[in-house]
Amino acid sequence: MDATRPLDALNMARGKRVIVELKNGRTYVGVLRAFDIHINTVIEEAEEYVDGAMKRKLGMAFIRGDTITIISPQ
Amino acid sequence: MDATRPLDALNMARGKRVIVELKNGRTYVGVLRAFDIHINTVIEEAEEYVDGAMKRKLGMAFIRGDTITIISPQ
Amino acid sequence: MDATRPLDALNMARGKRVIVELKNGRTYVGVLRAFDIHINTVIEEAEEYVDGAMKRKLGMAFIRGDTITIISPQ
Amino acid sequence: MDATRPLDALNMARGKRVIVELKNGRTYVGVLRAFDIHINTVIEEAEEYVDGAMKRKLGMAFIRGDTITIISPQ
Amino acid sequence: MDATRPLDALNMARGKRVIVELKNGRTYVGVLRAFDIHINTVIEEAEEYVDGAMKRKLGMAFIRGDTITIISPQ
Amino acid sequence: MDATRPLDALNMARGKRVIVELKNGRTYVGVLRAFDIHINTVIEEAEEYVDGAMKRKLGMAFIRGDTITIISPQ
Amino acid sequence: MDATRPLDALNMARGKRVIVELKNGRTYVGVLRAFDIHINTVIEEAEEYVDGAMKRKLGMAFIRGDTITIISPQ
Repeated sequence: MDATRPLDALNMARGKRVIVELKNGRTYVGVLRAFDIHINTVIEEAEEYVDGAMKRKLGMAFIRGDTITIISPQ
Repeated sequence: MDATRPLDALNMARGKRVIVELKNGRTYVGVLRAFDIHINTVIEEAEEYVDGAMKRKLGMAFIRGDTITIISPQ
Repeated sequence: MDATRPLDALNMARGKRVIVELKNGRTYVGVLRAFDIHINTVIEEAEEYVDGAMKRKLGMAFIRGDTITIISPQ
Repeated sequence: MDATRPLDALNMARGKRVIVELKNGRTYVGVLRAFDIHINTVIEEAEEYVDGAMKRKLGMAFIRGDTITIISPQ
Repeated sequence: MDATRPLDALNMARGKRVIVELKNGRTYVGVLRAFDIHINTVIEEAEEYVDGAMKRKLGMAFIRGDTITIISPQ
Repeated sequence: MDATRPLDALNMARGKRVIVELKNGRTYVGVLRAFDIHINTVIEEAEEYVDGAMKRKLGMAFIRGDTITIISPQ
Repeated sequence: MDATRPLDALNMARGKRVIVELKNGRTYVGVLRAFDIHINTVIEEAEEYVDGAMKRKLGMAFIRGDTITIISPQ
């Protein structure tokens, strides 16, 4: 990977399945559709995990950037 | 969905029922009427859920953006 | 309601009784007199509720915006 | 009261005794001398209350705005 | 005191012993040497108090403004 | 080291293995690929540690800057 | 000391051993190499203390400013 800016690296994950982890301990897994400079993030085919167990399927989920700790392609 | 910016994706949910989850664990369900760049959000026909149980019906609810974790169309 | 921006919707509640809920769990009920873009809010004839019980009557209360979770007309 | 902006309303309390409540649960009562747009606030003849009991008398107290939840004239 | 802005009031405490209280419950007492608009504060001959007991003597202490709740001249 | 600005110092760790510690107590170890002025950070060959034990291997991890406490080259 | 601005005072500690305390209760001791207006701070020959006990030696440590409570020359 040659991206020298974090958002460029994140951009390479667009359209791929990513894990999004939140400050409240919840994890969302879905296809990364969009993000902005605040790291507000939209994923589709989202699944919510609490304590490792899948809790809900959500269609599209808008996640406010300031609640996110990490985003990682699966 | 072709929205490449998170707020565009959120805009496609305008007028639809959405789930809004807060950092304090509460959930609001209602019709998405308005939001701004801070994700300050207005929903109508709002219902408040605490620990999964419906607690109150509110008419219009203005939700301050920085308390929101996720917004998802039902 | 046709307000497309959250603050326009909030403006329609000006002069009406509103519920203001705070991050610390307290609730204030009073007449919405003023607010600004930070959601700093002034209510009059304010009553403070803690755990559902009315605790104090306050005349005017200035509430710092960043402590607010939701504002809803009664 | 005709103040349509929160800081105008707060300005009407200048020189009067106010209650200032903080996010950490402490309460300060004193004469409102000064405040700014961050709600940094200066009171004089300040008394500090913890759990409803007066704990200390302070002369002048500068209170950082982001720790404040509400300000209310006594 | 005629200072109408909070930082002017704080400026009058420059060179005097002040109490600086932090969000984490710690208290620092020392001579107020400098502060800025973020309320980043420098005190000298600083003493740190935890639960009311003097814990450490520090020479100069730079205190990050956003951790401060109140500053009060002794 | 002659870097006089923190980001210059961080830049010297680019391409090296670093430890990234988060406010939630988690630790990530990986190759520092990118960071920006918000300290949003991208590491590769990332390993996640919880309470000192390696929990997961992640390929690339985007870490939101405001969740980071320290970054240190191994 | 004649520094009238906090960052000037901090600048006088450059190249000296300082104690850096964090909001999470950890303490880092090392040579102050760099800092910026956000108080992002770089120390070298860093030692990490938890509950008063030295836990780790780190070479260079970049500390994100918003996690810092105080910085004090040893």
